[in-house]
Amino acid sequence: METVTNKYVVTTSNIDGAPNESNFAICEQVVSLKVLRQPAGEGSDIVVVVKNMYVSIDPYQINRMKSYSCSQGTVSAAAALLPGQAINASGVGRVVGSTHPEFKEGDLVSGALIWGEYTLVKGISLQWLQKLDTNLSFPLSYFAGGVLGSSGLTAYGGFFKVCKPKKGDKVFVFAASGSVGSLVGQYAKLFGCYVVGCAGTKQKVDLLKDELGFDDAFNYKQETDLNSALKRYFPEGIDIYFDNVGGEMLEAAINNMNVFGRVSLCGVISEYTDDSKRAKPDMVAVVYKRIKIEGFLSVDFMDIYQEYISTTIIYLQTGELKAVEDISDGLDSIPTAFVDLFRGNNVGKKIVRISQD
Amino acid sequence: METVTNKYVVTTSNIDGAPNESNFAICEQVVSLKVLRQPAGEGSDIVVVVKNMYVSIDPYQINRMKSYSCSQGTVSAAAALLPGQAINASGVGRVVGSTHPEFKEGDLVSGALIWGEYTLVKGISLQWLQKLDTNLSFPLSYFAGGVLGSSGLTAYGGFFKVCKPKKGDKVFVFAASGSVGSLVGQYAKLFGCYVVGCAGTKQKVDLLKDELGFDDAFNYKQETDLNSALKRYFPEGIDIYFDNVGGEMLEAAINNMNVFGRVSLCGVISEYTDDSKRAKPDMVAVVYKRIKIEGFLSVDFMDIYQEYISTTIIYLQTGELKAVEDISDGLDSIPTAFVDLFRGNNVGKKIVRISQD
Repeated sequence: METVTNKYVVTTSNIDGAPNESNFAICEQVVSLKVLRQPAGEGSDIVVVVKNMYVSIDPYQINRMKSYSCSQGTVSAAAALLPGQAINASGVGRVVGSTHPEFKEGDLVSGALIWGEYTLVKGISLQWLQKLDTNLSFPLSYFAGGVLGSSGLTAYGGFFKVCKPKKGDKVFVFAASGSVGSLVGQYAKLFGCYVVGCAGTKQKVDLLKDELGFDDAFNYKQETDLNSALKRYFPEGIDIYFDNVGGEMLEAAINNMNVFGRVSLCGVISEYTDDSKRAKPDMVAVVYKRIKIEGFLSVDFMDIYQEYISTTIIYLQTGELKAVEDISDGLDSIPTAFVDLFRGNNVGKKIVRISQD
Repeated sequence: METVTNKYVVTTSNIDGAPNESNFAICEQVVSLKVLRQPAGEGSDIVVVVKNMYVSIDPYQINRMKSYSCSQGTVSAAAALLPGQAINASGVGRVVGSTHPEFKEGDLVSGALIWGEYTLVKGISLQWLQKLDTNLSFPLSYFAGGVLGSSGLTAYGGFFKVCKPKKGDKVFVFAASGSVGSLVGQYAKLFGCYVVGCAGTKQKVDLLKDELGFDDAFNYKQETDLNSALKRYFPEGIDIYFDNVGGEMLEAAINNMNVFGRVSLCGVISEYTDDSKRAKPDMVAVVYKRIKIEGFLSVDFMDIYQEYISTTIIYLQTGELKAVEDISDGLDSIPTAFVDLFRGNNVGKKIVRISQD
């Protein structure tokens, strides 16, 4: 077999409001599996062909799909995605062709793969490609942007490096049943903090309290006054707010924050699809309470990658940390999997399994 | 002379909007200058009577005068001021009576004095009282919350400790002709940054460019679009924004900020008297550009006090740093001096001279 038909997902137009399935289409392209080594020194022509197995579905991708693409183009994670263009994301797959000396057919790898059946990894994407440690007996999906991928690094780095916790700190986690929030809450508990999470369904709230060991949890959709809800759950105030929503909840959290409180922002999902939901935090409180609000991306945490990965592997092996996954099957399920993130339909890390091998 | 009639300023009611002169009144009280040493060990009964010479007039005081007094009561700087109560502020004066072993009649001191002719310094206020170094040949007003008092410490600590500058950073200072802003801009220039300030009159803008060495300056009242104004003055983006206004300017600064930009908030004057002016910063940009927004108070910088004071004294002696002062005369001028801060009528540090000696 020298060529295959590669199916992959694209957007059909820019998406400036809430996404829906009709914003996406499946394209097909013939791909040669037989790659030829290029003349020495021309590194950019080195190609690794990967058969994709698991790809990560993350809400931040919406920012790449907007007409006015986020950021000033200096941040690769937010690089604009044009309609019709293949969509890269974290993923796991098996090498089926390679001109790269370090990767050979049959290797299991993680890296920047596309929402498609095959990925031609080349150029700058090669720097993210890495062989999986097959001695670890974890599900491969953990490496597809999950607990052993970008979500894990985001949670670990965001909590330890940005929030700078102290034992006993009162920690509030929004979207606590999501891919990042579920890990932040567990890292915080393991570190010795008091942790309250919120989520949007009873099922998710039960998961936080019964399975993930949160001290408490509540359904924010059942609260008419977020300010007084937080006052009820944090009678002694909040020290750390791990935010990924922005909007009204950020305002309420600032109001309930303690002196020297820290807010880490890893996303602003309520504002991704609706500018009118922008938070108006009380900056007078930010001054008097000396609050720090800080945005971050997981790419900033490469300096603590080894610490994060070794700590997390041990926690997973001892069973102290649980990876919550929400896996759909088949390339065709990607558009719905993505759109569902904005409807709150996922529980834990959203992943699509494209092939078993 | 054993007693004097002490005149002092009070508020007549809480102030929840923009302040005006009618919110204030002058009270009189008879004060004994003859203080008696109390039984040993009862430190709280130790009193130092100070004849006030200069007192500082600062916008943050408005927050203490509101019905809903700012903060949760844990921050002494924001302690509520009841109508009829003497108003404490930074000041300089001469001791005219003392039961304190370290202060004697005739000493020049700085500390928390009242907007009045005399202050009975006792209890917790004693910890702020300190003798002035009379070997320094600076005007006494410098110590009344000015360049050698809280404004200086706010500027120095806010810039070096919160903003963490690097040489060559592009720095934007709001209210750059004010007590804190004028010092921040000069510290930043001396450190090797590119500094642009804004202010609300041509006179102030000229001061920044012609006297204080700012690289550039503009009148924000003459700009119809703050976003494009900042783009014009910072074609390479802003690294540090020293904010003390909040509102629209904060939004525009965030939009024009570089990756890893820092916003330090030492006040939010536009929101002190009008909640509707609250900023809605683009938190998506805060995430992608990894911006840090941090509130602070000068009391947090006591650990770098010695560094600040010795550095600043040298800069003042060499003439590299200029203290811009705006001094009114007489206790009766205090209400207008305060109200004028909110009308932008001051240039530099606002101080009232109550007595010459």
